[in-house]
Amino acid sequence: MPIEGTFRAHQVPVEDVKTKPEHLNILEEWMRSYKPEELFDEQGRFNPELAALAPQGDRRMGANPHANGGRVLVDLDVPDFTDYALEIKKPATTYYENTRVLGEMMRDMFTSNATQQNFRYFCPDETNSNRLGDVFQVENRTFEEKIIPIDDHLSPDGRVMEVLSEHLCEGWLEGYVLTGRHGVFATYEAFAMIIDSMMMQHTKWLEKALDLPWREPVASLNILLTSTCWRNDHNGFSHQGPGLIDTALTSKGAVARVYLPPDANCLLSVADHCLRSRNYVNLMVIDKQLHLQFLPMQQAIEHCTRGLSIWQWASNADSIEPDVVLACAGDVMTMETVAAAWWLRHHLPELKVRVVNVVDLMTLYSPDVHPHGLDDTTFTELFTADKPVVFAFHGYQRAVHELIHGRPNAARFHVRGFNEQGTTTTPFDMVVLNQVSRYHLCILAMQHAPRLHHLTPPLIQECNDLLTKHHTYVRTTFEDMPEVRDWVWTD
Amino acid sequence: MPIEGTFRAHQVPVEDVKTKPEHLNILEEWMRSYKPEELFDEQGRFNPELAALAPQGDRRMGANPHANGGRVLVDLDVPDFTDYALEIKKPATTYYENTRVLGEMMRDMFTSNATQQNFRYFCPDETNSNRLGDVFQVENRTFEEKIIPIDDHLSPDGRVMEVLSEHLCEGWLEGYVLTGRHGVFATYEAFAMIIDSMMMQHTKWLEKALDLPWREPVASLNILLTSTCWRNDHNGFSHQGPGLIDTALTSKGAVARVYLPPDANCLLSVADHCLRSRNYVNLMVIDKQLHLQFLPMQQAIEHCTRGLSIWQWASNADSIEPDVVLACAGDVMTMETVAAAWWLRHHLPELKVRVVNVVDLMTLYSPDVHPHGLDDTTFTELFTADKPVVFAFHGYQRAVHELIHGRPNAARFHVRGFNEQGTTTTPFDMVVLNQVSRYHLCILAMQHAPRLHHLTPPLIQECNDLLTKHHTYVRTTFEDMPEVRDWVWTD
Repeated sequence: MPIEGTFRAHQVPVEDVKTKPEHLNILEEWMRSYKPEELFDEQGRFNPELAALAPQGDRRMGANPHANGGRVLVDLDVPDFTDYALEIKKPATTYYENTRVLGEMMRDMFTSNATQQNFRYFCPDETNSNRLGDVFQVENRTFEEKIIPIDDHLSPDGRVMEVLSEHLCEGWLEGYVLTGRHGVFATYEAFAMIIDSMMMQHTKWLEKALDLPWREPVASLNILLTSTCWRNDHNGFSHQGPGLIDTALTSKGAVARVYLPPDANCLLSVADHCLRSRNYVNLMVIDKQLHLQFLPMQQAIEHCTRGLSIWQWASNADSIEPDVVLACAGDVMTMETVAAAWWLRHHLPELKVRVVNVVDLMTLYSPDVHPHGLDDTTFTELFTADKPVVFAFHGYQRAVHELIHGRPNAARFHVRGFNEQGTTTTPFDMVVLNQVSRYHLCILAMQHAPRLHHLTPPLIQECNDLLTKHHTYVRTTFEDMPEVRDWVWTD
Repeated sequence: MPIEGTFRAHQVPVEDVKTKPEHLNILEEWMRSYKPEELFDEQGRFNPELAALAPQGDRRMGANPHANGGRVLVDLDVPDFTDYALEIKKPATTYYENTRVLGEMMRDMFTSNATQQNFRYFCPDETNSNRLGDVFQVENRTFEEKIIPIDDHLSPDGRVMEVLSEHLCEGWLEGYVLTGRHGVFATYEAFAMIIDSMMMQHTKWLEKALDLPWREPVASLNILLTSTCWRNDHNGFSHQGPGLIDTALTSKGAVARVYLPPDANCLLSVADHCLRSRNYVNLMVIDKQLHLQFLPMQQAIEHCTRGLSIWQWASNADSIEPDVVLACAGDVMTMETVAAAWWLRHHLPELKVRVVNVVDLMTLYSPDVHPHGLDDTTFTELFTADKPVVFAFHGYQRAVHELIHGRPNAARFHVRGFNEQGTTTTPFDMVVLNQVSRYHLCILAMQHAPRLHHLTPPLIQECNDLLTKHHTYVRTTFEDMPEVRDWVWTD
């Protein structure tokens, strides 16, 4: 069969050369057709004249500075992120669109790096929808076709790369950082799964590059997942899927990072870190809609630097071992957890709860799995050695068990999270459907705190009554109950 | 700003109508432009003449039988899968290409369903490579362009759908099963992640369809993942990634299934089940290359029907509680585990081990998570209540902790699996790099069996010496050591 010029050229052209002399002959004839006697001397050394034809130094393909992007990398001029901080007078009392502050910061990054022209923002047609539209005060969308008057911030040299293809956006960003520039790719959380294979291949590339001393570090691949599963109540089930986190958890710790900032100030701190980092794939997961704000800037910095910490203001077990730890990761999960702590404090003050918020998911891993992993002593200081932990997790709930395997008494972690229950409904109904609402968390906390079982049956009943009331209310009014919709922290 | 005919038509055209009367006016003017007085009567009822314009019965879009594929579904004529069985005289003593038997069975499925023409096989250009090439004895690849003499089994009406796009293949199969036909999509395991978002959306569709009594069941989406992470030693790290399993684990139990048949006869039994099933997404994960064969057909049927079972022939703890359970899931993992059991039996017969093989991964879930989940009594009968379990898992190792959370003493499960360590190397070096080789499993088993700690130090040293010997051997000869490469079970 002919091989050259046909699809067979992709396959093994001559098989079994070790055992079939006639096949070995075919292989030898083929190899000899390249006239090795003209290419090599009698000792098998390559002809120096021919070797000299190959490019030298930086002209070699792998040594070209643009192919080893770290060599041409110029640090990003990142504005002081605290300039965009929200003023938080009291935790959990004001609502704000989480991502809007990042839009302001990115706007100023376009300006501060305008001379260097080494920052771009990639997004499938959702910059305004993702509340990042402030960038258009100073920057345009790239558009190469004819521009007409009613178009909105288009220009051939725009540095906002908007096209409704997650594949293109992610691939562009990969190429951009690998050639020594910086960027952010923002997308709806559920659609990010479209590019998880690309993200995985990039992590594999980075993992191997770390072993090559001549490869200079490149900027991290920064992925912002916004419009998350919990707040696609208007779009429905197809838009509800936090699976990219699960994929990131399979990557090696040397490369993969997952951050779940609970509010706008924490997002600023996390984004600043990610934008300055090198050789990582950073997932930042935070929703764009109006959300409860928790931490003043200085506390946000301390919290994000640790990666997780106890929120004393929401706890009532200051100096003692709590009956139960209420842990959370993710904006909506944090709100539900803080609201659960508030409800318990008002209805069952005898129950001592500790609220732990997790920003950096990888801190939960053992240190031998991920460099961010807490040592067991610190882990125990936060989660106790043996008290029940009710964990409200942004993503698929069972992923937490991957993370905490090997921790002291890991079986005491009772995790709730996205459990593939979704539809078009109200925001609070989404957390109810997935059994991770504040009332579900209260019930779990009470069920797992044996010290107070003599007090809890009527309160558990009250939570169940509230869930029943909610069920009827949303199906009658198409809105959440006022006590949920307008809830804020009170002492 | 103009909206009609521009990109703004995709957005909310008039905002804040509840609070801004002038916006409400715009909305009303717009709505009135449709002339509702011509469409509705004074009670707001739709004009019956206009309503009569809509199609009736099966002509309605959602009621068209081809849009509700179960209504036109004809059962597949599946040949008796036992006709393709390999004869296994003694477990773990012969090697065979696992997927070849499925190629023979699919060949005969093309023939037995030729009149109905309701079976297709979808594959990105790898049918022969995946050892399924027997289908070409009776069927061709679809090809609509000009066909030339050197082409290989092309025809415009071929039912083998080969195109090097996993997106196309998976999407075709979705459409094919949703319109009432049957099929299989086979692809390299690592590349399957390209379509995991599509697979997820299909599971979401099926989950919702289950709630609609008028939707008739459709054939399952059958995905065969072959050319797996463990045997892409020639292709390298980019081809090594078992992540689709992790994605499948996030889907709801009502729909998702993951099977890891350890050998060819088990694959036949699993494939028969999947091809006859309805409304599932079935992942079948098994490598195409020469692999050790374990079970005669009758035993394979019993094993696959249970989903997991004790392999007494490989165990030496017949009627007693073992010191350690050696569990495994996946072809290569099963070989390493059985080889570990063999090595321990020869070197430390005092150590009582039980080998448990898992075909149906979802059996490990609690029954409240997945309908295949074993009850705790059966789980304990297999894995004991408290003995250490050394688990060799085909996929990313920590996924097992998601599965077994809530089981008795889940912390005693010591899982090894694919751990994102890969390159171009030998088959055995792949399992060594990921610390799941037979010698690693032996060391783990000995470390976790305290009863025999007085005997194990020299044997652990021997395993480490063998690993050192292997390291040098493969880097000198580019082949695995003969005692590994040619290993078979002996009594």
